[in-house]
Amino acid sequence: MKFELKDRDATGRICKFSTKHGTITTPNLMPVINPNKMIITPKEMKKLFGTEIVITNSYIIKKDEKLREKALKNGVHKLIDFDGPIMTDSGTFQSYVYGDVSLDPIEIVEFQKKIGSDIGTILDIFGTPDQKKNEAEKGVKETLKRAKRSVILKGEMNLACPVQGSIFLDLRLKCANEISKIDADVYPIGGVVPLMENQRYSDLVKIIISSKKGLNPSKPVHLFGAGHPLIFPLAVALGCDFFDSSAYVKYANDDRLVFPWGTEKLESLTELPCCCPVCSKLTVDELKRMDEKERILEIAKHNLYVSFAEIKKIRNAISQGTLWELVERRANSNPYLTQALKILRLKENKKWLELFETSSKNSAVFYTGENTIHRPIIYRSHQRLLKNYKPFFKDTIVFPEGNKPYSIFYADHIKRIKAKREDINFLVDSNIGPVPFELDEMYPFAQSVFPIITDYETEKEVSDVFEKFTKNKKIICWKGKDTINELTQSEKKAFDKDLSKVTAVCDMQFGKGVGKILTDGEIKVVKSKKTGKIRNVYLNNKHILSMRANDGMFTLKIEGGKILHNKFKKPLLRVVVNKDAVPFVKEGKSVFAKFVKNCDSKLRPSDECLVVDEKDNLLSIGRCILNKDEMLSFGNGVAVKTRESCNK
Amino acid sequence: MKFELKDRDATGRICKFSTKHGTITTPNLMPVINPNKMIITPKEMKKLFGTEIVITNSYIIKKDEKLREKALKNGVHKLIDFDGPIMTDSGTFQSYVYGDVSLDPIEIVEFQKKIGSDIGTILDIFGTPDQKKNEAEKGVKETLKRAKRSVILKGEMNLACPVQGSIFLDLRLKCANEISKIDADVYPIGGVVPLMENQRYSDLVKIIISSKKGLNPSKPVHLFGAGHPLIFPLAVALGCDFFDSSAYVKYANDDRLVFPWGTEKLESLTELPCCCPVCSKLTVDELKRMDEKERILEIAKHNLYVSFAEIKKIRNAISQGTLWELVERRANSNPYLTQALKILRLKENKKWLELFETSSKNSAVFYTGENTIHRPIIYRSHQRLLKNYKPFFKDTIVFPEGNKPYSIFYADHIKRIKAKREDINFLVDSNIGPVPFELDEMYPFAQSVFPIITDYETEKEVSDVFEKFTKNKKIICWKGKDTINELTQSEKKAFDKDLSKVTAVCDMQFGKGVGKILTDGEIKVVKSKKTGKIRNVYLNNKHILSMRANDGMFTLKIEGGKILHNKFKKPLLRVVVNKDAVPFVKEGKSVFAKFVKNCDSKLRPSDECLVVDEKDNLLSIGRCILNKDEMLSFGNGVAVKTRESCNK
Repeated sequence: MKFELKDRDATGRICKFSTKHGTITTPNLMPVINPNKMIITPKEMKKLFGTEIVITNSYIIKKDEKLREKALKNGVHKLIDFDGPIMTDSGTFQSYVYGDVSLDPIEIVEFQKKIGSDIGTILDIFGTPDQKKNEAEKGVKETLKRAKRSVILKGEMNLACPVQGSIFLDLRLKCANEISKIDADVYPIGGVVPLMENQRYSDLVKIIISSKKGLNPSKPVHLFGAGHPLIFPLAVALGCDFFDSSAYVKYANDDRLVFPWGTEKLESLTELPCCCPVCSKLTVDELKRMDEKERILEIAKHNLYVSFAEIKKIRNAISQGTLWELVERRANSNPYLTQALKILRLKENKKWLELFETSSKNSAVFYTGENTIHRPIIYRSHQRLLKNYKPFFKDTIVFPEGNKPYSIFYADHIKRIKAKREDINFLVDSNIGPVPFELDEMYPFAQSVFPIITDYETEKEVSDVFEKFTKNKKIICWKGKDTINELTQSEKKAFDKDLSKVTAVCDMQFGKGVGKILTDGEIKVVKSKKTGKIRNVYLNNKHILSMRANDGMFTLKIEGGKILHNKFKKPLLRVVVNKDAVPFVKEGKSVFAKFVKNCDSKLRPSDECLVVDEKDNLLSIGRCILNKDEMLSFGNGVAVKTRESCNK
Repeated sequence: MKFELKDRDATGRICKFSTKHGTITTPNLMPVINPNKMIITPKEMKKLFGTEIVITNSYIIKKDEKLREKALKNGVHKLIDFDGPIMTDSGTFQSYVYGDVSLDPIEIVEFQKKIGSDIGTILDIFGTPDQKKNEAEKGVKETLKRAKRSVILKGEMNLACPVQGSIFLDLRLKCANEISKIDADVYPIGGVVPLMENQRYSDLVKIIISSKKGLNPSKPVHLFGAGHPLIFPLAVALGCDFFDSSAYVKYANDDRLVFPWGTEKLESLTELPCCCPVCSKLTVDELKRMDEKERILEIAKHNLYVSFAEIKKIRNAISQGTLWELVERRANSNPYLTQALKILRLKENKKWLELFETSSKNSAVFYTGENTIHRPIIYRSHQRLLKNYKPFFKDTIVFPEGNKPYSIFYADHIKRIKAKREDINFLVDSNIGPVPFELDEMYPFAQSVFPIITDYETEKEVSDVFEKFTKNKKIICWKGKDTINELTQSEKKAFDKDLSKVTAVCDMQFGKGVGKILTDGEIKVVKSKKTGKIRNVYLNNKHILSMRANDGMFTLKIEGGKILHNKFKKPLLRVVVNKDAVPFVKEGKSVFAKFVKNCDSKLRPSDECLVVDEKDNLLSIGRCILNKDEMLSFGNGVAVKTRESCNK
């Protein structure tokens, strides 16, 4: 089995998951196939919606003699006539709905293996939200016991071992930690259906986060029973990889249409508010007048068109770096989801989400409302401003929000100020936070679109950061001419503008003090003739840094890496690879996760890093794809994209 | 020509617009047809997207000899092979884009008539956003002059006379006022394309509101050149009825796909984030690999599928009473749109929007974020609480937010309080504002879904209203047992609970003091055995009111109407009809707008009203479909749905 990360945004990711019946892309949705009643066959689903993987129920197959015989004889793929990957469920949910079903936990795993399931599921104990803690604890224990017994039998079948623990977050975390020790292939989050049915999205979010915190990050997480697109973007942003939908047919049976923003009863619609092939072909009256069977089929199709489009939308958002935007837009569709999103603002959750956030994205930060200021990337920027940034002079002039880039917008003022006094910093009290002029081209300060007036939440958050940032600093609010008149002639010379920019960006990007290290000598800054922006930085005639035009951040050159490696102590910025990988990395090959022995815990996805051997010899510089935990747990895929190696 | 209102929500409306080539439903979108190059023919559009009306350009037809000859000979419908309504534009936009085009303003109107256009357009002067005021004023004058000259010639053709005035709101209002005096059939809002191209949605909103304020409300308003679905919901909510899209093909030519949330370049997509027939049929790579012509066609189709789905979504939202929700959700898609929505919070705009807001809706008020508290229906409720509601006792106990209905959620507490003291009011400091217990089943207090924690904007707004509402009142914050212990035994008896509810709801719904009038005598309240809710109210054995279960508001019975009519002076609650209508109304027929002579300016759509003749004799009671301005200007359709008449 292989699970390999290909792209990422927020705590979400696009991965490849390989099975004997083919490789699929996650996040993905598995339609639930009832082997007794296929309203749409898996084959049709593949054709119509691009369905790549389905889920069916081994318990239902096993208890029906005909199905059982067929499945045992020809395999589950023949049974439901699908040649792609098939996951099977075990009867856990049935035992929750119908009470205890007489099933042997070992037998059902063996049965799944026998019928050729690509992903089998253990018979875990469904923890309900109304359980008492000791009951939930008992369920977790039993689930873990069964998981341990089942995993021995799995053979070539992938095995899914769910996290349980009801709504007790410590239990969820504990169960996730324990189950991660078991060599399963998928870690579903179970017992969440009753929460979703009652729109208890806040509890759901807490459970996902607690589970994810304990789970091995290199295995796919399946949000068991989640089939409504409303919840997909948020769940993916928190690290869920698989969904399964029986909702498409359950809702259709009840004349309900699902939409990204919620559910609508057919009878309450006067027009079909959708452009899917079903809704484009039919009018609402035609749909209402259809006979029941045909109507249910059409609604089920609509539900799947919409659900799969949402999955595609999410994957596209991950590639574009706009998943948080999508999540925030969706959250506004439903008051309970709005509520749930607020949980992400808690400091402990922000800190966790920040671990997975790439240091730069392809898209600007688009404001969608009061949630935007709490995005991990903005939280990180604020934290780094407070911890890493060091102003050059004692006094700072603060300008109000203006057009970007600020140093050009305020160029005339600066000229007049500098004529009077040179040793002064410039800062913009922007809608996204305080922005020192040296950072006015850096992501996300420059690459953000906020309205002129934001909202109280944003204003409060920004003013808190501003206050902390300017504490113990002398602040002069820009009041036009008066400000200039009040300035006294300075004796000190101004810091070189380019040099101060290089220093500030380095400190923000690589860590406090790096700016000083990388500018300690004879500095030459080469700028683009066209844009006037910094392109390359040379230290003592060696090319150490290049600035990217799209995000105003540096890519490290090998000569820069050597200096950092020399002056910056272990483990800073390091990714340590084992000796097997050394020759490949030296040749400039990328670092595969399985060769990573250790890693600086401060490195984040997209960060520049130093690849070293176990004796801390520098091998290459590159860009991280994974964070520390991920590097140390993924068995497949690239951990660091090497850019330059020492040998070359 | 007929333009008839069928349903409404926000300041938006669903209307029927009749032409010689058929009746269409508004809001609607007219795809722009270039007679020289039809990438998709109007016939195909009808089949694929349900296109009902198209727009083509008479200037382009006229200047091309072949097209001109054909059009003059066979008519414009044959020319573009479409048997539905066709609107024609006049060359105004071309003269804006290419500079002065030599066109005679009279000739072009006559030409449009000759070729059989269903809606012709005068050659107005396109006012650009960068114009100086005197220039814009000159343009408006010339536009009005041409409109006056053109309208004489229109014959059976509907004529569109645009509102111009650049970004000068007083000019827009003035132009709208003046052009409303001209007997045109459609009033487009012109000169807005450059604003939309630069995402200046705030200016756009201001212009739409200023124009709408001056325009005759009984004529359709066309937002000229608006073809991107992003803007449709907000524009409809502000009263726009028609859009035209050349965007579908313009964007397609440039490999751009439109979505409800914005525009995406094909090259930036890794998956097609959509479920339209094009995006369901093709993968993004297939689309990218297509040859140019085919690709443009597919993207154009996608753009139209999405645009028409958005129109259907909007009409459905109007029927469901959820248009503001849709607007607020969309606003979060784009920072400039977010900014634009804030303009609606200005008191003058809230006051204007409130005029059109129905008094009750089919759907609950769903919180979408900080915009929700500013919805006109909530503004109205707060205003009426402050002006119409009168507490029964001096002291009030305030409970925090709880489950609905509050009087049941807090029933135990109330029982204990009342055991100690009866003359006390109960109030909930809810997330939507102060809710006296008598109103806890009334729309929108009961029919609203807000999260437990809202946002600073909402909290501030609500606490402002709470402060005003409780000013000069003695407030006791509920602190459990302590509160009960601090109460002193009362001498007064409690007000009858049902009576106080009837009184309070009447005051909120019909006006201050109405509660007293309608309960002045022997009151009998009949409740539902099943729900315990008030059903019918009898005064001196006459059935005067029925309470609706869905919104907790009263429908007026004729006996109640008689009392109100008797004790409540003109013009309160009156709709005055002319003598031609009297016999019909007496028979129980609905009141058509064209027979309305006058109307209480306080009546809002869905309000209960008294229909009287010109001598103020009561004819019937009913429910308003229109507000005063609309009743006095609409020539078609129902103004009041009669429920009971005096004769019956």
